[in-house]
Amino acid sequence: MATHQFVPTVYQLTIGSHEPVLRIADGDTVETTTLDAVGGDETGVARSRPSNPMTGPFFVEGAEPGDTLAVTIERMTPNRDSGWTNGVLAPNVVDPGFVPNLPHAARTYWNIDREAGTIALTNPPERLRGLVLPLDPMLGCFGVAPDRGQAISTATSAEHGGNMDYRGFRPGVTAYFPVFVPGALFHLGDGHAIQGDGEIVGTGVETSFAVAFTVRVQKARRIGWPRGENDDEVFACGNARPLDQALQHATTEMARWLTEELGFDTVSASHLLGQAVRYDIGNVFDPAYTVVCRLAKRWLA
Amino acid sequence: MATHQFVPTVYQLTIGSHEPVLRIADGDTVETTTLDAVGGDETGVARSRPSNPMTGPFFVEGAEPGDTLAVTIERMTPNRDSGWTNGVLAPNVVDPGFVPNLPHAARTYWNIDREAGTIALTNPPERLRGLVLPLDPMLGCFGVAPDRGQAISTATSAEHGGNMDYRGFRPGVTAYFPVFVPGALFHLGDGHAIQGDGEIVGTGVETSFAVAFTVRVQKARRIGWPRGENDDEVFACGNARPLDQALQHATTEMARWLTEELGFDTVSASHLLGQAVRYDIGNVFDPAYTVVCRLAKRWLA
Amino acid sequence: MATHQFVPTVYQLTIGSHEPVLRIADGDTVETTTLDAVGGDETGVARSRPSNPMTGPFFVEGAEPGDTLAVTIERMTPNRDSGWTNGVLAPNVVDPGFVPNLPHAARTYWNIDREAGTIALTNPPERLRGLVLPLDPMLGCFGVAPDRGQAISTATSAEHGGNMDYRGFRPGVTAYFPVFVPGALFHLGDGHAIQGDGEIVGTGVETSFAVAFTVRVQKARRIGWPRGENDDEVFACGNARPLDQALQHATTEMARWLTEELGFDTVSASHLLGQAVRYDIGNVFDPAYTVVCRLAKRWLA
Amino acid sequence: MATHQFVPTVYQLTIGSHEPVLRIADGDTVETTTLDAVGGDETGVARSRPSNPMTGPFFVEGAEPGDTLAVTIERMTPNRDSGWTNGVLAPNVVDPGFVPNLPHAARTYWNIDREAGTIALTNPPERLRGLVLPLDPMLGCFGVAPDRGQAISTATSAEHGGNMDYRGFRPGVTAYFPVFVPGALFHLGDGHAIQGDGEIVGTGVETSFAVAFTVRVQKARRIGWPRGENDDEVFACGNARPLDQALQHATTEMARWLTEELGFDTVSASHLLGQAVRYDIGNVFDPAYTVVCRLAKRWLA
Repeated sequence: MATHQFVPTVYQLTIGSHEPVLRIADGDTVETTTLDAVGGDETGVARSRPSNPMTGPFFVEGAEPGDTLAVTIERMTPNRDSGWTNGVLAPNVVDPGFVPNLPHAARTYWNIDREAGTIALTNPPERLRGLVLPLDPMLGCFGVAPDRGQAISTATSAEHGGNMDYRGFRPGVTAYFPVFVPGALFHLGDGHAIQGDGEIVGTGVETSFAVAFTVRVQKARRIGWPRGENDDEVFACGNARPLDQALQHATTEMARWLTEELGFDTVSASHLLGQAVRYDIGNVFDPAYTVVCRLAKRWLA
Repeated sequence: MATHQFVPTVYQLTIGSHEPVLRIADGDTVETTTLDAVGGDETGVARSRPSNPMTGPFFVEGAEPGDTLAVTIERMTPNRDSGWTNGVLAPNVVDPGFVPNLPHAARTYWNIDREAGTIALTNPPERLRGLVLPLDPMLGCFGVAPDRGQAISTATSAEHGGNMDYRGFRPGVTAYFPVFVPGALFHLGDGHAIQGDGEIVGTGVETSFAVAFTVRVQKARRIGWPRGENDDEVFACGNARPLDQALQHATTEMARWLTEELGFDTVSASHLLGQAVRYDIGNVFDPAYTVVCRLAKRWLA
Repeated sequence: MATHQFVPTVYQLTIGSHEPVLRIADGDTVETTTLDAVGGDETGVARSRPSNPMTGPFFVEGAEPGDTLAVTIERMTPNRDSGWTNGVLAPNVVDPGFVPNLPHAARTYWNIDREAGTIALTNPPERLRGLVLPLDPMLGCFGVAPDRGQAISTATSAEHGGNMDYRGFRPGVTAYFPVFVPGALFHLGDGHAIQGDGEIVGTGVETSFAVAFTVRVQKARRIGWPRGENDDEVFACGNARPLDQALQHATTEMARWLTEELGFDTVSASHLLGQAVRYDIGNVFDPAYTVVCRLAKRWLA
Repeated sequence: MATHQFVPTVYQLTIGSHEPVLRIADGDTVETTTLDAVGGDETGVARSRPSNPMTGPFFVEGAEPGDTLAVTIERMTPNRDSGWTNGVLAPNVVDPGFVPNLPHAARTYWNIDREAGTIALTNPPERLRGLVLPLDPMLGCFGVAPDRGQAISTATSAEHGGNMDYRGFRPGVTAYFPVFVPGALFHLGDGHAIQGDGEIVGTGVETSFAVAFTVRVQKARRIGWPRGENDDEVFACGNARPLDQALQHATTEMARWLTEELGFDTVSASHLLGQAVRYDIGNVFDPAYTVVCRLAKRWLA
């Protein structure tokens, strides 16, 4: 259970069966860095073309197709003191007739105060003077190599994870991915200092990060979609368009979790989900939208 | 600002320009009762055909087209000690290929303990023995008469409200509806003792209620979709399929609230929503789905 | 089997259980007129408020809930020599990012040459000089009163028919509607001199019409959605959003037709539909979109 | 303008920047073969893993990013006398509640009579005795390598083409693809002897083919989505879910064709499309659905 300090020198614009940058063992922790969505590093210098360049992939020894890779996000700290966002609501999140009212999107900068744990616009417009938001880091894009030799753009997401842009993937969470290729080939990047539900301006507060994560291999645990767990909840993700289909994937994956792993029959799972389920909208901006189906652990006793 | 005790004798299966059951003034409170979704009253006797029979409509003096009707849900108490749910996940909330695994939906009964404020299955299956959920009442279907003489089924929802099945419409909330006809003609019913996000088994815990609500007329406040407010948040609802369109309506309505009433320009509204917005999925079962766009009041100072 | 000349004096803006304007018998033909979408009559004078005012309803003797009403469109002739369209593509039929390029929609006029059977822009822009389209009349909105006392806006469509805006509802077609109320209560209007698939500018060439139609009652034929038939094909309509759901309704209705009425088992119906089905997109502009599932009659022998 | 006889020995399960199998010049014709969807060759022997193995890629000299590759399907002839289909309607093309009625999908065989140009079930069920369909070959999956190093599964489609399963891609058609990488890297496969709209049983009549195609490079013609042309019509494809989004892509691409290449302004394009456009549904089975926007050439004079 080693801890590796890994300094990336190459980045990937797809999640696929690329040459691994490091081989790590079940239980190992990696301390590394991620670029921002357009390739900027801790000095703001572009180290990759856009968008969402990935650190990795990391080859996890012992991971085989049919297993699950558990990835705990141990720590995420911005490694610079500024981030940026797009300036206006994306046209696909408002009524078609409302779009012409939107001005052109301009890149907007935010100050990140790592000591205070806060974020504020660098040059706030009048109405937002004094607005201070909490620093709430998350990984926008991470996952494992998909099957059949695919190399999937880091702009989108699917069963292998990818650009889910879900604010629940924050430090303290363990994410689960289905393993499709030997070594799983874990990629990560696109950290946000904060992001609202849906990533509806097309960005969170985009910045570069120091990240520490720990991997574990769960042999012969077959899952269909990315899952996750924090102290209070378990959750399952579905990535698709429209949101209806993403929700179907997420709900089915949660129903499978309850019935295949947690001792529920279909009727019991239905009763519990029917009255206690929660949904989050991960993103409604990327080519595939993300819906997250959540359930409090206290109902699983 | 009178308080009316109103005992309903007729119920409506559409929300429309029906004969008012009571005329009330701006500021008045009404204490009345609602049937369950299939018409059952406090003794379980069917007093109306299904589904979602409405108490009302109430004519609110002074309300005119172009105004907004504010309705505060003061209290909701089940007036019997049992409720019921459907037995399985709705086929439209799971993957198409997953449906054949679902058993036939059977009506399932729950005990409501009003003193303890809890709910439990009357005959729990093995895996759910000991499950006790909190009593968390909400109004599934309520709203005002729509425009152009429409009478809209209480199975669905639109700009006038209706069967939104959003668990956030609970006691303490003030809901806002656009007024389309003189007197607004407010209807209410379909109370749930609890309901998960999305109403994904097609029901909450359906039961009859004693309800108290207060109305206020907001002259010349033009809103496009139902809105709401509680101690911590403001929110806007969109009702449509797919969820993507419901989300567009809700986001647009929130953007209009910020820009037309709260002093934001479009860019400022975009910055705040982009990093601080929250979405809830109200229902994904009814003919129109419901998405709710929420924002914490503390960011509006 | 009488032929009635009916001159309308009142028009409806919803399809519902309104007072009938005429009682007709099974087999009767009605010759009447329809207004254009904004209420204009044969002289261009507004005789009703917009939109899509309906002539009717006609009470068809003998029609009861559970029956089907067959309506043959015998003839449709514009009763004036001009029509109009909206000027630009609707924002919901193009990519969200494409919308800002669209100029504001202005009403545009067309000349209708009834003798030649052609249509041409009154003041064509340079690139459309010489464009002459065929006169191809169709009924945009027609149907029967829905169930549970609903009165449904003529802007939209559902199981009862309504604003389907499908160019296949032209003279020579027999349309079938499920009967929900005694007398069926048939409404019609919103004729177009021509319309492309989808009604993607939000209008066909809108004008007023002289219409002749014949009704027949099909006792105890239970259908779920509007169907139709011409010399070559049978078809079934589904009305919903997104198009995916409209297509599901239309396909299911066609599968039911094949299996419940035409002697197919599910597998045989699947084989035939799989390799021979055709789909049309009726409209992608109205609140409910319309998809039509078609099958050539020659495969049904 | 050579004609190449190419006998494939390797097949690809993604469309991507794979090692070219042959370099060809602008104007060249290739005569080659394609496997069926599960890898079967002209003898029925599996020569590749499923699904939709591709012949190619072919490197077209002179094709650069920013160009368009024109591919004319010269001839397609089944090179064996049998094909197969899935046995039942896909669950996603019928109402959710209708699915449980569908029996399990079984592979079903069809005889292909190349001389007569007809197809018939090998063992027809009673109701389909005597059903003879026309041989109507089409390419289900073809396209060029996508950008940013992606390798996209041949199960799906996007801007680069792919598994569009549109019956209009038949002999005589010229398809146009945007070029993303040097040489374009053209792949083809998944031929169908016939297919209904939507590929609603999940297959056409799947078989192996002898195919001849001709390529041409259109320098500096920038298109966004696959387009096509036959004697009578031009068309543009959009690939996405839901169908609504696919239709938006297709309509936008057609509007761009009219305004960027054919001399229309936006209003003129709107008038013509509004009254004369046709839509086809390519597929509603694959991960991305396909909608085709068509326009008769006679309106473009």
